[in-house]
Amino acid sequence: MRMSEGVEWGLHCCLILAWLGTDEPVPTAQFAAWFELPPAYLNKRLQALVRAGILTSTPGARGGFRLARRPEQISLMDVVAAVEGREDVFRCTEIRRRGEGAEAPEREFLQPCGIAAAMRKAELAWRRELAAQTLADLMEAAPPSAGGRARRHYERTRR
Amino acid sequence: MRMSEGVEWGLHCCLILAWLGTDEPVPTAQFAAWFELPPAYLNKRLQALVRAGILTSTPGARGGFRLARRPEQISLMDVVAAVEGREDVFRCTEIRRRGEGAEAPEREFLQPCGIAAAMRKAELAWRRELAAQTLADLMEAAPPSAGGRARRHYERTRR
Ligand code: FES
Ligand code: FES
Repeated sequence: MRMSEGVEWGLHCCLILAWLGTDEPVPTAQFAAWFELPPAYLNKRLQALVRAGILTSTPGARGGFRLARRPEQISLMDVVAAVEGREDVFRCTEIRRRGEGAEAPEREFLQPCGIAAAMRKAELAWRRELAAQTLADLMEAAPPSAGGRARRHYERTRR
Repeated sequence: MRMSEGVEWGLHCCLILAWLGTDEPVPTAQFAAWFELPPAYLNKRLQALVRAGILTSTPGARGGFRLARRPEQISLMDVVAAVEGREDVFRCTEIRRRGEGAEAPEREFLQPCGIAAAMRKAELAWRRELAAQTLADLMEAAPPSAGGRARRHYERTRR
């Protein structure tokens, strides 16, 4: 079980936008060059962030992406959900009702299966932690030089 | 991103063994009939639990599976790790070092990337919660009738 690389890509692109703090949209090509990523595939990932309301996109020759909200309003959970979807990682297929379970009285199934509930409890701890960390926290945790270098690189390479 | 159904199967089979509390090995065929699962595929999953030291297996015509430890010593984390492996769900590919990042001074990379660290922190919260819940807790949370029914079903259908 592995998270798509789109989460790493998306978070890094969002962090760059947060560092640049510019109102000019940044094109896919620039992100792709930044990290040496395949532009078409990266663009798909960024479009998923647009659909999730994390980025806005401007079409056209001078188009590109901007953050749709302030960095403190974008959590890791938002980006993970945009790329991976909101479904639980553990999905109960109700095997308790199959075979022998078919003999059980219906009232045993009024509550979710205890295994499913326990797995969900653990998953919620994960999601809560993802939701508690924002782009603003990532900016603070990054090496102080990283934001400045991002801005210089941008000034040097923008159209 | 989705956890293999082997986790649901494995946990339910372990729970049955915990309920039965018998020293007789329970064969794959019995678990498969219990939940209407494909025996060969289920057997593969149970073998993974054996390799992880959660179950012991006895070969032969009267062979099958037993719990290798007491229910309070088997956590959800053990079963998830046995089926899914121990690798992190989020895997950093170090894209920070690519492209523009190649210009950064080496000391910026002495610490793990802040994004990777934040993702890991969240994942640890999940793993901690999985590790904190055991088969014994699941037994307690189950409907009181479920354990008795399992034992009666076992007595009726054993070889
Ligand atoms: S029936 Fe799905 S986890 Fe128990
Ligand atoms: S380089 Fe991998 S998460 Fe940042």
